[in-house]
Amino acid sequence: MEDLTIALDVRSAAPLYEQIYEHIKREITQGGLPFGKRLPSTRKLAEFLQVSRTTVDLAYEQLVSEGYVEARPYKGYFVCELEGICSLNTENPRKRKKPEQPDSGCRYDFSPRGVDLNSFPLNAWRKLSKEILMEDNTRFFQLGDPQGEWELRCTIADYLHQARGVSAGPEQIVIGAGNDFLLMLLCVLLGNGNVFAMESPTYRKAYELFDGLSYTVKTAEMDESGMRVDSLEKTGANLAYVMPSHQYPLGIVMPVKRRMQLLEWAAGKEGRYILEDDYDSEFRYRGKPIPALAGYDRRGKVIYIGTFSKSIAPAIRVSYLVLPESLMESYEKKGRRISSTVSRVDQLLISRFLRDGYYERHLNKMRAVYKSRHDALLEAMKPFREILTVSGENAGVHLLLNFQNGMTEEEAVRRAREQSVGVYGLSRYYIGEAARKRQTVILGYANVTEEEIKEAAKRLLAAWLEPVPPF
Amino acid sequence: MEDLTIALDVRSAAPLYEQIYEHIKREITQGGLPFGKRLPSTRKLAEFLQVSRTTVDLAYEQLVSEGYVEARPYKGYFVCELEGICSLNTENPRKRKKPEQPDSGCRYDFSPRGVDLNSFPLNAWRKLSKEILMEDNTRFFQLGDPQGEWELRCTIADYLHQARGVSAGPEQIVIGAGNDFLLMLLCVLLGNGNVFAMESPTYRKAYELFDGLSYTVKTAEMDESGMRVDSLEKTGANLAYVMPSHQYPLGIVMPVKRRMQLLEWAAGKEGRYILEDDYDSEFRYRGKPIPALAGYDRRGKVIYIGTFSKSIAPAIRVSYLVLPESLMESYEKKGRRISSTVSRVDQLLISRFLRDGYYERHLNKMRAVYKSRHDALLEAMKPFREILTVSGENAGVHLLLNFQNGMTEEEAVRRAREQSVGVYGLSRYYIGEAARKRQTVILGYANVTEEEIKEAAKRLLAAWLEPVPPF
Repeated sequence: MEDLTIALDVRSAAPLYEQIYEHIKREITQGGLPFGKRLPSTRKLAEFLQVSRTTVDLAYEQLVSEGYVEARPYKGYFVCELEGICSLNTENPRKRKKPEQPDSGCRYDFSPRGVDLNSFPLNAWRKLSKEILMEDNTRFFQLGDPQGEWELRCTIADYLHQARGVSAGPEQIVIGAGNDFLLMLLCVLLGNGNVFAMESPTYRKAYELFDGLSYTVKTAEMDESGMRVDSLEKTGANLAYVMPSHQYPLGIVMPVKRRMQLLEWAAGKEGRYILEDDYDSEFRYRGKPIPALAGYDRRGKVIYIGTFSKSIAPAIRVSYLVLPESLMESYEKKGRRISSTVSRVDQLLISRFLRDGYYERHLNKMRAVYKSRHDALLEAMKPFREILTVSGENAGVHLLLNFQNGMTEEEAVRRAREQSVGVYGLSRYYIGEAARKRQTVILGYANVTEEEIKEAAKRLLAAWLEPVPPF
Repeated sequence: MEDLTIALDVRSAAPLYEQIYEHIKREITQGGLPFGKRLPSTRKLAEFLQVSRTTVDLAYEQLVSEGYVEARPYKGYFVCELEGICSLNTENPRKRKKPEQPDSGCRYDFSPRGVDLNSFPLNAWRKLSKEILMEDNTRFFQLGDPQGEWELRCTIADYLHQARGVSAGPEQIVIGAGNDFLLMLLCVLLGNGNVFAMESPTYRKAYELFDGLSYTVKTAEMDESGMRVDSLEKTGANLAYVMPSHQYPLGIVMPVKRRMQLLEWAAGKEGRYILEDDYDSEFRYRGKPIPALAGYDRRGKVIYIGTFSKSIAPAIRVSYLVLPESLMESYEKKGRRISSTVSRVDQLLISRFLRDGYYERHLNKMRAVYKSRHDALLEAMKPFREILTVSGENAGVHLLLNFQNGMTEEEAVRRAREQSVGVYGLSRYYIGEAARKRQTVILGYANVTEEEIKEAAKRLLAAWLEPVPPF
């Protein structure tokens, strides 16, 4: 029993049974107690160590349950055979250095991904959050409906009907934590063998996502109305991903005629769908918002996806899918297995945010803020009219500048950066082998004040109005 | 211009331009204004309708942007050709009836999916939530790290090191909204062509998820130590899904020897991994919690998944993956494209819940609550010792009752239900063609008080101690 001479420390925070367990485990893993060796009975070891028998029982039981020791009925406790390395990996976690955030490093950053958060309705958010948590019950912490809270789905159905012309019932709506998740879910519902057609340039993240999920992605050509249906037909795709209300990044509004043609295309074959990404339809500065393509769909061919990340705040991880009837069976079979990705508290919060009118007020406010910036940027671009044309205006939160003086995209971006102004090339939004004829940069204005726009424009004058050196 | 005699209503909530737009659109879609027809100039229509020219401009612009009307330079405005149905789908949303919640309908429900929420630390939750929202900045509403907040990942790394013996750096941890999402993400990281091996019976939801994601799932045989490595080898799988700390549903604790064998198997070939689901390791009623398999892994072969849904509350949609180094490149390439599915506020809330000791106190409390129920249920099962054996005890929140008197699972469930006691058959956890030799039911006790356990046991006596009728 000498290898079980354990230096027990009664003042230690670790209970005695644990000290015994740790000692024996160490002996076993380091070979001090070889395979097959019989351990002393609990009574004997308890006497030897001057501890209660329960203490030794507990230590042995732990060793047995972890598989270091085997209990043979009527025979006693024996060391198990262990192969390979079996000591716990107890080195300290490696040095931790928080990775640095990527940053344009520019004083004026026209990132198209920005959202203005100075207008975030933090007080309303606090109030609603507090209200929900004060409702003294724990119902909200029980597992909710995988499809999303009924209340929120009803609120979204109402909103879609009023604001987007879409008549969908709450039973067709699926709530999820962001578009990326919902696109992943959609891939589960659609199953294998689907071919996506996308425009080029397009929302690159969606492309990368479909590509990462191992879908075949084809490029359909575009004209000034958006995706060309003849080209779409040629791709052989059964799914067309479009942003009819405001194409990203070109800002094209798809005219009704093209919408009808797309719907005709989808109706032409079983299993064809249009995936309508309505990502920033809320922001339109002239006229009424343009109704969603899903609003024209009478044959259940449009899958609609919308989000609150763009209209409220990026960290609000709430998006929604509207599924046509024909996909509901697949949802019931495959989708319902996947638990909701949004907490019930957040779902109720968003639902009340919409229901109580906060969302409408917030959208009106943001529309005004973004419109002023949109107008200021258009105004500030006037001195450039000799060298570039502006497109994609009147909606969304970015503009395109198309250089007409031979300035290349790279050159424009580089020169702006030298003046500490961040503008972004259009090339990055192209997929596949599509032509990249235009020399175009994108300026997002969601996060730049009017004052800053004026300042940045002065710098861009210096950057871009110098003659382009001949190569 | 007679078809443009528009009855304008100055008292209407709709602005004049919108009334003009709506009228012309209706005329176009109903055929009153045929394809190619030239509209009056904005000046003429403005005079005709006695409105300002800006009003008509705005109406025409909206029609143009939606594609009903085409503007030809120097020529004017013309009606576009429209094919198919093109009026908006404006019927009222269908009748809404909230779907009924599935409910066992039993007075005493031993559902294995329950979590006791009476002990949910609602006050701490409220306090932390308020604190975070009162920190007067909107940083938390900007898009966060796709991998999860650095603070939370550090807190989880510390927790895993202390409580589970796992030494992982925060750079290996990925936060996601629930296990289902993280398993979907993992499938993206692993790519196509993987074959999963699972035990049978197993956590059926994971099986359905892998199956739904079109993975090949094979069944590896089990013995009393869990997944058999020789059988695993035969499946040809490269991924083994196991729950070593407490197999669901059988409650097996995988001994160290088997763990080592599994690690050896994984080390035997490139691309092999063990997926360790550590779903309820927090609840163990005798001895220390058993270290995670990932704690023994020195070759980067274990993918670990843990959750707060089981230990805090089901609606807390926060789980975490620990990726081995070898999968980090794939994460950077494919996984980082997918935005985080958990709001930053929730991530900070969980991080502080752990950091400030609330989690530890909550776990200790829940362990005591569940242990009392566990003990009460074991005690209440004593009168049944003639007809059944108990297994899966000492951990988790459920027990198994194995009938030895010829009572079938279906019969046991049916008879219990007649006494309004919900117990659940083990069969539903089997996948594939695995043998279903045992006649076993599961009793979850997380949501049943000791008083209720005593009452339910009386009813089960009446249900099960009647002789089984011979067939």
